[in-house]
Amino acid sequence: MSEYVAPLRDMQFVLKELAGIDQVAQLPGYEDASVDLIDAVLDEAAKFAGGVLSPLNIPGDREGAKWSANDGKPGVTMPAGFKEAYKLFAESGWTGLQSDPEWGGQGLPKVVGAAVTEMWKSANHAFSLCPLLTGGAAEALSLCGSETLQQTYLEKMAAGVWTGTMNLTEPQAGSDLSAIRSRAEPQADGSYKIFGQKIFITYGDHDMAENIVHLVLARTPTAPEGVKGISMFVVPKFLVNADGSLGERNDAWCVSIEHKLGIHASPTAVMAFGDNGGAIGHLVGEENRGLEYMFIMMNAARFGVGLEGVAACERAYQRARDYARDRVQCVETGVRGGPKVPIIRHPDVRRMLMTMRAYAEATRALAYVVGAAHDVATRHPDVALRRRNQAFVDLMIPVVKGWSTETGIQVASIGVQVHGGMGFIEETGAAQYLRDARISAIYEGTTGIQANDLIGRKMAREGGATLKALIEEMRALDADLAQAAGEHFAAIHRRFGEGLEALATAGQWIVDTYGPDVRAASAGAVPFLMLVGIVTGGWQMARAALIAQAKIKAGETDPFYQDKIITARFFADNILVQAQGLADSITDGAASVMALAEDRF
Amino acid sequence: MSEYVAPLRDMQFVLKELAGIDQVAQLPGYEDASVDLIDAVLDEAAKFAGGVLSPLNIPGDREGAKWSANDGKPGVTMPAGFKEAYKLFAESGWTGLQSDPEWGGQGLPKVVGAAVTEMWKSANHAFSLCPLLTGGAAEALSLCGSETLQQTYLEKMAAGVWTGTMNLTEPQAGSDLSAIRSRAEPQADGSYKIFGQKIFITYGDHDMAENIVHLVLARTPTAPEGVKGISMFVVPKFLVNADGSLGERNDAWCVSIEHKLGIHASPTAVMAFGDNGGAIGHLVGEENRGLEYMFIMMNAARFGVGLEGVAACERAYQRARDYARDRVQCVETGVRGGPKVPIIRHPDVRRMLMTMRAYAEATRALAYVVGAAHDVATRHPDVALRRRNQAFVDLMIPVVKGWSTETGIQVASIGVQVHGGMGFIEETGAAQYLRDARISAIYEGTTGIQANDLIGRKMAREGGATLKALIEEMRALDADLAQAAGEHFAAIHRRFGEGLEALATAGQWIVDTYGPDVRAASAGAVPFLMLVGIVTGGWQMARAALIAQAKIKAGETDPFYQDKIITARFFADNILVQAQGLADSITDGAASVMALAEDRF
Repeated sequence: MSEYVAPLRDMQFVLKELAGIDQVAQLPGYEDASVDLIDAVLDEAAKFAGGVLSPLNIPGDREGAKWSANDGKPGVTMPAGFKEAYKLFAESGWTGLQSDPEWGGQGLPKVVGAAVTEMWKSANHAFSLCPLLTGGAAEALSLCGSETLQQTYLEKMAAGVWTGTMNLTEPQAGSDLSAIRSRAEPQADGSYKIFGQKIFITYGDHDMAENIVHLVLARTPTAPEGVKGISMFVVPKFLVNADGSLGERNDAWCVSIEHKLGIHASPTAVMAFGDNGGAIGHLVGEENRGLEYMFIMMNAARFGVGLEGVAACERAYQRARDYARDRVQCVETGVRGGPKVPIIRHPDVRRMLMTMRAYAEATRALAYVVGAAHDVATRHPDVALRRRNQAFVDLMIPVVKGWSTETGIQVASIGVQVHGGMGFIEETGAAQYLRDARISAIYEGTTGIQANDLIGRKMAREGGATLKALIEEMRALDADLAQAAGEHFAAIHRRFGEGLEALATAGQWIVDTYGPDVRAASAGAVPFLMLVGIVTGGWQMARAALIAQAKIKAGETDPFYQDKIITARFFADNILVQAQGLADSITDGAASVMALAEDRF
Repeated sequence: MSEYVAPLRDMQFVLKELAGIDQVAQLPGYEDASVDLIDAVLDEAAKFAGGVLSPLNIPGDREGAKWSANDGKPGVTMPAGFKEAYKLFAESGWTGLQSDPEWGGQGLPKVVGAAVTEMWKSANHAFSLCPLLTGGAAEALSLCGSETLQQTYLEKMAAGVWTGTMNLTEPQAGSDLSAIRSRAEPQADGSYKIFGQKIFITYGDHDMAENIVHLVLARTPTAPEGVKGISMFVVPKFLVNADGSLGERNDAWCVSIEHKLGIHASPTAVMAFGDNGGAIGHLVGEENRGLEYMFIMMNAARFGVGLEGVAACERAYQRARDYARDRVQCVETGVRGGPKVPIIRHPDVRRMLMTMRAYAEATRALAYVVGAAHDVATRHPDVALRRRNQAFVDLMIPVVKGWSTETGIQVASIGVQVHGGMGFIEETGAAQYLRDARISAIYEGTTGIQANDLIGRKMAREGGATLKALIEEMRALDADLAQAAGEHFAAIHRRFGEGLEALATAGQWIVDTYGPDVRAASAGAVPFLMLVGIVTGGWQMARAALIAQAKIKAGETDPFYQDKIITARFFADNILVQAQGLADSITDGAASVMALAEDRF
């Protein structure tokens, strides 16, 4: 059974050459994050991912998280090994990697966190969700919570002793948070009693940590209707005494967990708040601003989920490649009577592996570049530069989330295909990646929700200004690509140029159409998100190829660089070529999307 | 829980208007198959599929087929209800629908069998495999077996009292049948003793029928190496006495079954032949011609598996549509403060549903048209017409198999997405379609194998003559499309024309490249198969739209016709637009597919 091996060479290339880790490391607050330190962090993370998390991935899927009624104190038991792995994970400092040093964290840049998170997610998607949610909850508290709340919770969360959750969804309120009905009744002591049921709560209960910090959306008695009447509350599993020690069990219980297609080791809880008198909670920030705060968590979580797409591509690629090297079937194509060869020699298998590899590299490059832009947007002293980077990050978060995860599903499915019949057998392991990856395009906002965020809030609201600036920035690569020698660059130049034009046309159409016919614009939103993904992914691959060529010219002999050029060319000729078709379905496809009468489906 | 409802209206439209069932019903031997009779057959099949098979689909998945050691007589127990359902299925005459009346079958045309098979597969994919394999085995026996073998087996198989299997795969010989090692030792009485292990044997054991007729590939002692030394043997589970009664248990045992991603109710057996002295078998046809005979079964099975793609599209569409009608979330796009609406009103959901619907209709139309061509090729008195139809069928079988099943996976995945978080919960049922559909692109030859069959045996070997004739036939639609009024037809005309040109270019490139650089041609084989699929699927949709328009002009008021035009236009603007991108990756993509050194993956 082949374990995950972190693709350190490509990660370091992307961090250094594409994401500008040197510049990030010079930002105020990141001075201690030297490139040497970052290399060391990645090495250690790679060891932990491959050595501790990856071996638990298949057993965790098979055993799954288990719920039991437990004599009226219902709760979740994690699969064998998860508790110990989590303890080691926390003790090794991984939970606090990006947390503020004030709370005991290491305060490393987001782009470094991205690389490390990708490793956790490749090695063990189900496990990775616990620290992902904890980090999001801590970020919301650190930005919106009172000093008391921060003092109470943040150190423990950075240390991983306590974990966190996001409690948004209710049965009648999935993507539509305006329909939330959970109630919060103010108490004399300034606390609230929370009543309501939440579903789909990732790591809503488990036995890996001493306490669980639930951030819960609910309505106060005086709250207005809709999304403007939602407040956020901290509702810990165990109440916290003034001295920080754990007090009574709170009235917040996991009453069941879901039977899911994948991520079996990640407990997806139905949470009951207040069935026995009321769960004690404390308001985070101001009343009725809960949605705004939740989006702080949500944006961090969306980026993290986007990395699941990258991680699925990489992990599925590694297993398929290993199988294709070992499995001997048929003679070489075009050879009669020769010896049988490993299937990696067969052109169709090679095409599948190249597709997987190209997507892994492109989604990774794009995600890390966006992560680095987040660091610049947060820390750079130059306000104009901060703003420009923030606008880029805002535009790209739905793309990193939506495109990478849709791609991850596709690549995991190709991984099954490379294995042939063995891919359909669960023991092989390839099918689990497909089952696990399938959720990433759904939670933290489906691809449709990401796409509507992209074309609405991120584009139409500003007349497409950030997208246009991005297109101009991408066009600036044209001269270098035109000058670069060889057929690989000729292909990259041509296909990237065509992709850019398709994107420019479709983007303008979206901006022009959104006002007069928002339904038509929305009909093309997902194809548009996918188009932005492949063109910006192609942009990073083109940048990578140019840098690789410069390295080769400068005398570097690492074959990594030639591989990168080949993979970029594959991306151009086999993936970027889809751009015009996507653009056509955006600009022309909407008419028939809405034409059929609703009762005629 | 919504049960499957057969799409009779569309099935009848395709049969009558596109597949020419009237002409098929006039072929020699099909004279009894009047259109009225066929309508009645479809009605009854629809009732059986919706009323008996569909309700067993989710329970069958959950319980799964179970293997037990059973005190040295290992075997498989089917999930609750399957045995009774199969008995009813056989007694109702469904097993013998296409079988020769000589053996008690009803001898209905393949195109009618296609529609009925689609229903079984939509309603219960796992169940449907048992009759599919039985039909294939019976077809091989009826074409290649001695009269004694036919007398012994065919009546029982047509009646469904006995079922059949195909025993090809061995652990070291998956797609590569030349590596088969199972042995057949001739005995004094003319029988053989069979020794060897087979894997991935669908319905290799079960408790639904009195006997199981295994067709087994093995080598005789004097057989040459490779595929030219493979013979086919009948190895029944229970030996058959001269009077047709069942005799001793044969030495053919199911020693375990696989734990799979999907089709849990379909037992995938590891079969051990001869571990206790030798399994008694009889040679089918002549020695060393087993592969040829197996391809008779295989081609029928490939067509049947292609119908699984159609069926997956339809079933996933129905469930997603029902959910989208029921699930109320968010206000209408572009409306502020209005009531919350069912998600079917949201443009992105509508796009997903239209995609699912368009693919279901296009894959169905193509498959039935190929089925009808098979009937003409088999039965028409005009030899030239028979030949032309056979060439078309041979060309299209890999497309029906490969394109429909890849599409089925994609559509089942979209179905999960329509459900949002509920789609990931197994109880919802949408995820099962994705798990079940995933196998169809693998068994009976992966998509890669179909694609190589398409470009090699079906195109390069004859210089692309049949494909060129098909393109000419498709081009003949141009005038009618150009004349048809309205923007729907303008779009269909344009996109179908572009698709045809892309296909013509890519097809010529494949034919030209196959000889000088077969690896480059093979690198583009799967994209080419997908291109043939969407263009020929688009052709059927365009034909359907023209016919629908003629019906409307003639005063027909059934809204079905306007829906068909809209769906055809959706197919054109949202699916056919991918044609050029596929063509580009065929003609330009190969260079980078094989460029990376094998040890650099």
